[in-house]
Amino acid sequence: MIIDCHGHYTTLPPAVGEWRDAQVAAVERDPDHVGEKGTIDVSDDQIRESVEGAQLKLQRERGADLTIFSPRASWMGHHIGNEHTSQHWSQHQNELIRRVCDLYPSNFAPVCQLPQSPGAGLDAAVAELERCVGEMGFVGCNVNPDPTGGFWTGPPLWDRYWWPLWETMCALDVPAMIHVSATCNENFHTTGSHYLGADTTAFMQALTSGFMSDFPGLRWIIPHGGGAVPYHWGRFKGMAEDNGWDFAGLGDHLFYDTCVYHQPGIDLLVDVVPVENILFGSEMVGAVRGIDPVSGHHYDDTKRYLDRAGLTDEDRAAIYDGNIRRVYPRLAAQLEADA
Amino acid sequence: MIIDCHGHYTTLPPAVGEWRDAQVAAVERDPDHVGEKGTIDVSDDQIRESVEGAQLKLQRERGADLTIFSPRASWMGHHIGNEHTSQHWSQHQNELIRRVCDLYPSNFAPVCQLPQSPGAGLDAAVAELERCVGEMGFVGCNVNPDPTGGFWTGPPLWDRYWWPLWETMCALDVPAMIHVSATCNENFHTTGSHYLGADTTAFMQALTSGFMSDFPGLRWIIPHGGGAVPYHWGRFKGMAEDNGWDFAGLGDHLFYDTCVYHQPGIDLLVDVVPVENILFGSEMVGAVRGIDPVSGHHYDDTKRYLDRAGLTDEDRAAIYDGNIRRVYPRLAAQLEADA
Repeated sequence: MIIDCHGHYTTLPPAVGEWRDAQVAAVERDPDHVGEKGTIDVSDDQIRESVEGAQLKLQRERGADLTIFSPRASWMGHHIGNEHTSQHWSQHQNELIRRVCDLYPSNFAPVCQLPQSPGAGLDAAVAELERCVGEMGFVGCNVNPDPTGGFWTGPPLWDRYWWPLWETMCALDVPAMIHVSATCNENFHTTGSHYLGADTTAFMQALTSGFMSDFPGLRWIIPHGGGAVPYHWGRFKGMAEDNGWDFAGLGDHLFYDTCVYHQPGIDLLVDVVPVENILFGSEMVGAVRGIDPVSGHHYDDTKRYLDRAGLTDEDRAAIYDGNIRRVYPRLAAQLEADA
Repeated sequence: MIIDCHGHYTTLPPAVGEWRDAQVAAVERDPDHVGEKGTIDVSDDQIRESVEGAQLKLQRERGADLTIFSPRASWMGHHIGNEHTSQHWSQHQNELIRRVCDLYPSNFAPVCQLPQSPGAGLDAAVAELERCVGEMGFVGCNVNPDPTGGFWTGPPLWDRYWWPLWETMCALDVPAMIHVSATCNENFHTTGSHYLGADTTAFMQALTSGFMSDFPGLRWIIPHGGGAVPYHWGRFKGMAEDNGWDFAGLGDHLFYDTCVYHQPGIDLLVDVVPVENILFGSEMVGAVRGIDPVSGHHYDDTKRYLDRAGLTDEDRAAIYDGNIRRVYPRLAAQLEADA
């Protein structure tokens, strides 16, 4: 089986954006605006239409079987408004993901966004995670390491602020993809420098603090091929040795997807990172949607690069399937129940 | 000839740190403290001692000839104090670099730090660049894209704020290495996530804005192997094609050093980045000072990786010498005058 661990619902029906625009306008008028969750009027046909020509079409064309599917990352927008803004929006987004997965249960598995908000506690995030996993069958979550949207003024991931979330994830046995949202800092570009910088930052926060050893079951996916990490693997290993940080110990906790959009990058990734820590991902219909004029194939068809990388069949199967079931045990259980 | 384009004076005699500590203490007591430049009492013998057992020893052992040498990057500390703090400190640091180069004129060539300061204009930076290049024979400068030390609240590099500096660099025909200093934001680690994130950020600011086409002679060195850029070369190329950004045009302006501390990383760099845009660098006695237990060699002995990379003699000579003379024409002129 071929499982893509990194897909977002980037092709939402127009009514979703309209609901969000109205919410953002209300909180711009009044920063303390609470509002109501209300409803977003989207039909099943509109949902079908939104994915049939995009994620589902490409999944079939490229030969993948299942996509772990979560709300559009750049639209999480945790920096917008207040904690109520984030809570209502996250609930809607997660319910839409559930509907996609109900319509295509063999093609998509659900992962949720969390209602984070700068300066607010994590109670709402913990409650939404418990709702999504406990009541709605979700298999993981996305955690934004910088809900300020590029100013990085909140607590680092090793801070005790985050521990209730890590404890809940361990109790529910679900992993988190550590994934920022859009930046509102003009120094950064959302899917360029902000995404990749955040990936490297999350890795370094884990490495320098060593806090994950307090959470034996805590698992993070570092997206976008780990940001800059595999390219600088020797730098980080050497820094760890200089400073007494447990580089090898991170292998129990950190996993890297394969969202690297050229063959040499994928070759490097599978060369330096242990195979058991690599999970197939494409983030298709995402940051790079075009076709490489040199190869004639989509840049984000990462399965094509993996198929051409120097991997044994066993290692390739681990990246496509086995590792993902190990990191997402609730998905594994669902797949076994369906088999 | 083998020229290392990325060396910092990380082994300063103790009196330098003592002067700085006193300056920092004064400005902590009074944020508006102006103070005086004063003197730092360091003898020529102390300078010799500080580099003989470190940069100079390793340069000889590893078979390089000349290091382009600048003040310790993590100590620039532009976020500390006010514009006077930064001005006096930068002048001292640059004068020490000049003394090192006077003592070892065939081993080191001088590059300056600039007295940047958050919220201040760039007049002092322009004046110090003109002093260093015009009066003291410097061949380039280091520019900090985030003088706030990790909060990124200043103007991006494409903003007109920076243009007087770019104009002065073009008039003097000197390049800049775009290099941050220490971070005071606990979310980041200075030589880990902050350095590499800043490298990728500078690249994206150039790519998305296209502003460099207004400065035909402007040349930047993106250090640390370009941060995450070569590993994600396909991502950036694809994003540029999606958005109409001039990816190829950056080749006239952006150069990448080879401070990547393992063989697979160097192999990727020389595979994807055009050879004419790669400059040999090691940043030795820097972020990673240890020996790789697997290879038995220093992680930061990047010449060793380059010698083992699949390069023709011609390409290797370009990376070690020709490209560097092209990017630093004032160095080339000095070398020709000395020959």
